[in-house]
Amino acid sequence: MHELINIIKIGGNIIDDEHKLSAFIKNFASVPGKKILVHGGGKLATKLAGRLGVPQKLIDGRRITDEETLKIVTMVYAGYINKNIVAQLQANDCNAIGVCGADANLVPATKRNHPTIDYGFAGDVNSEVLGGNRSIRSWQILLNNGLIPVIAPITHDTRGQLLNTNADTIAQEIGKALSSIYEVNLIYSFEKNGVLLDVNDESSVIPSLNEAYYHQLKKEQKIFAGMIPKLDNAFEALNNGVKKIIIGKAEALPDLISGSSGTSITHT
Amino acid sequence: MHELINIIKIGGNIIDDEHKLSAFIKNFASVPGKKILVHGGGKLATKLAGRLGVPQKLIDGRRITDEETLKIVTMVYAGYINKNIVAQLQANDCNAIGVCGADANLVPATKRNHPTIDYGFAGDVNSEVLGGNRSIRSWQILLNNGLIPVIAPITHDTRGQLLNTNADTIAQEIGKALSSIYEVNLIYSFEKNGVLLDVNDESSVIPSLNEAYYHQLKKEQKIFAGMIPKLDNAFEALNNGVKKIIIGKAEALPDLISGSSGTSITHT
Repeated sequence: MHELINIIKIGGNIIDDEHKLSAFIKNFASVPGKKILVHGGGKLATKLAGRLGVPQKLIDGRRITDEETLKIVTMVYAGYINKNIVAQLQANDCNAIGVCGADANLVPATKRNHPTIDYGFAGDVNSEVLGGNRSIRSWQILLNNGLIPVIAPITHDTRGQLLNTNADTIAQEIGKALSSIYEVNLIYSFEKNGVLLDVNDESSVIPSLNEAYYHQLKKEQKIFAGMIPKLDNAFEALNNGVKKIIIGKAEALPDLISGSSGTSITHT
Repeated sequence: MHELINIIKIGGNIIDDEHKLSAFIKNFASVPGKKILVHGGGKLATKLAGRLGVPQKLIDGRRITDEETLKIVTMVYAGYINKNIVAQLQANDCNAIGVCGADANLVPATKRNHPTIDYGFAGDVNSEVLGGNRSIRSWQILLNNGLIPVIAPITHDTRGQLLNTNADTIAQEIGKALSSIYEVNLIYSFEKNGVLLDVNDESSVIPSLNEAYYHQLKKEQKIFAGMIPKLDNAFEALNNGVKKIIIGKAEALPDLISGSSGTSITHT
């Protein structure tokens, strides 16, 4: 049996809240064993774009990453947010190292090529290259030596171009790739207690969700639309080697890891 | 005898020029053996501060790093510049990993405490902690596994605060610390051919400069004032374990390394 690793993704709402972030960081620092933190971007990039007068285009809720926007997200995600999280983790005796997907080729990607929409410098993770020897070796160098990777959602095409990539997808793809050498737990922490049967009732958490039940709930339109990409991601990871996926509230991180809070995404 | 390592610092004027940077990166990628790249910031941070309406205060030519300015330099140095250099090095088959001083505690510092001037979030490298087991071990993890560190001039106080630190000083301090385990060559590459006897004559390079000659030239006011901090830094490094220091033109990197260009700072 492989050694356990916890891959933990935090969403933007935690990053935007100094006190919540600080509490999360203390909790993350105390998670035992091997672990990786993947962070999203929050509202800071949008705010900076506003201050700089760079208009933000969204198509179907997805940000179009033009050249100026790529500069902004690189600065905010890989610079400001990443380094502040690392400094705080270091202050909590967690030997964090902040990187993006270009660093040590940890998360190779390809520029999105969509038949009708130009997403600009958006990158889709290249699962094959990420699962290949070169990237896996880089992950092992960090993880086997006690360094804790903190990943900003910026990737590269391996030919010199940085790309903007969804943080949920990065967490999922790292989970899939590392499942060849670790027993991977993937934890999506966000603002809600878990997957809710009633989006307005935080006590309606579904403790356990398998694919059959998920399809039934989707059919009955009982799954909040915003959760669908996250859950599709989760089942894809589960079907590609990830051992366990838990979705729940960032503030409850220790309980998510112990399995006493949140929604577990399971095979059966 | 220890293994050789080249620590190479590039200045802002290279970073500001896309073509020069691209040529430099190709040269850096082809330097054999262990190496570290330390980069400065260039004019991008000042430009961004201008666009954001954040006034930049300088005292005696040194930037005062208030809270807003710290955010800007963290974004620009550790985000935009660092990750673009890494992506380009990766495209040139150089397994770069971009970090700042907070990452893996690679460059610990202390907030500058000046009797009369408040420099804000300016950090002076903590040589003792940098030379200690914990930081040295982090350097070894990266270097012994074939990763090429690319260092942005942002440090931390180990208690959660990021700090803005001069890139020349970072290169010098890393050089001093690593001289306990490597034979360190420190290369300061910038816009001039080397240390010049006549600042307006690029052919007046002093090929070799020892401390006695330096003091004589300073006394005769033959050293350009802007070079004095760099040279003081260089001699301090030389007197603290660094084997060889070369100052010269970034475009001539292979010749600086072979010793056929630039100014060598020597003991004798």
